[in-house]
Amino acid sequence: MAQGATALKKLADRFARMPGIGRKTAQRMAYYITSLPKEESAALAQAILDASRKVRRCSVCCDLTEEELCPICADERRDHGVICVVEQPQDLLAIERTRDYRGVYHVLHGAISPLDGIGPDQITVKPLMARIAAGGVTEVIMATDSDTEGETTALYLSRLIKPFGVKVTRLAYGIPVGSDLQYADEITLSRAMEGRREL
Amino acid sequence: MAQGATALKKLADRFARMPGIGRKTAQRMAYYITSLPKEESAALAQAILDASRKVRRCSVCCDLTEEELCPICADERRDHGVICVVEQPQDLLAIERTRDYRGVYHVLHGAISPLDGIGPDQITVKPLMARIAAGGVTEVIMATDSDTEGETTALYLSRLIKPFGVKVTRLAYGIPVGSDLQYADEITLSRAMEGRREL
Repeated sequence: MAQGATALKKLADRFARMPGIGRKTAQRMAYYITSLPKEESAALAQAILDASRKVRRCSVCCDLTEEELCPICADERRDHGVICVVEQPQDLLAIERTRDYRGVYHVLHGAISPLDGIGPDQITVKPLMARIAAGGVTEVIMATDSDTEGETTALYLSRLIKPFGVKVTRLAYGIPVGSDLQYADEITLSRAMEGRREL
Repeated sequence: MAQGATALKKLADRFARMPGIGRKTAQRMAYYITSLPKEESAALAQAILDASRKVRRCSVCCDLTEEELCPICADERRDHGVICVVEQPQDLLAIERTRDYRGVYHVLHGAISPLDGIGPDQITVKPLMARIAAGGVTEVIMATDSDTEGETTALYLSRLIKPFGVKVTRLAYGIPVGSDLQYADEITLSRAMEGRREL
């Protein structure tokens, strides 16, 4: 395309700003758009506008939804006394796929990371604390990532929540199921040892 | 997002159809869209419409452009007697980055691949042959990929072109510059040996 297609370059630049999309993938995506029938590219543009307009945060758990209340918060069969705190909507989806969990969620939309300028105010800590202050919550499960930011966030939140007399738990660390022990890293392995249970 | 955001799911589905975009990346991209300010997502939708409307194929070399003729074909300082044949617009970009090549290009928009149902009619063989039949071409450089499809295409085209008395060449195979010899695969290594030059 050389310098001949600025519309293409502009589009590739926008794609390249997306998370996990490198320069080359962005270019390939832009080429793909030009190869689509006009109706298809128009439908994609419309889907972007729709998602941007319709999707908002649930007024309770902050998960993405098209309603005032997401289907999980609106579901009376779920246990609203147990809140599982996750960083991203994708994490919620992963837990839902287990079909084991019957409580509700709180989506932080990030984790505390002072180096990136993300403090408690940049994530949804306030609405979480409001839910806890409103009462009726018996347990908060910290399901943030097991990296530094996730750990920091879990620790920070547990300190805020405990004064309310609410039990705060953390997902177990250990060997991933079905994995080969010899490939587990030392930290995971020593955490798995610490957390061992009687059979 | 559970089942609550169909606009989000629809968008992720469309992103997942793009080349090189897996299910999870598509989901992350869709979430990203919902996190953008409304003007930003509207600008992205507009960029898609623009690229789809404005970008077309150069009437000579089939590269993507916004004009009737791409800047390279329109450039009189380039050698229009030498045509470098590439599979994709990205390949052209890669060669242009070397700043060595002064000829022109022909973009096939694919490679012959019977298994994928791609024959000479699905790529831009006809306009290439029309350029050669029109005369004035002294050399055609095959710069198709060095995989089976690229090799097949180079061989097929060279058979079509040679009867016109035009020289057909192929990019050299060999050890990538700056790479470690021990990691080169055997085929590359034996091709490099075959193509050795006197120092």
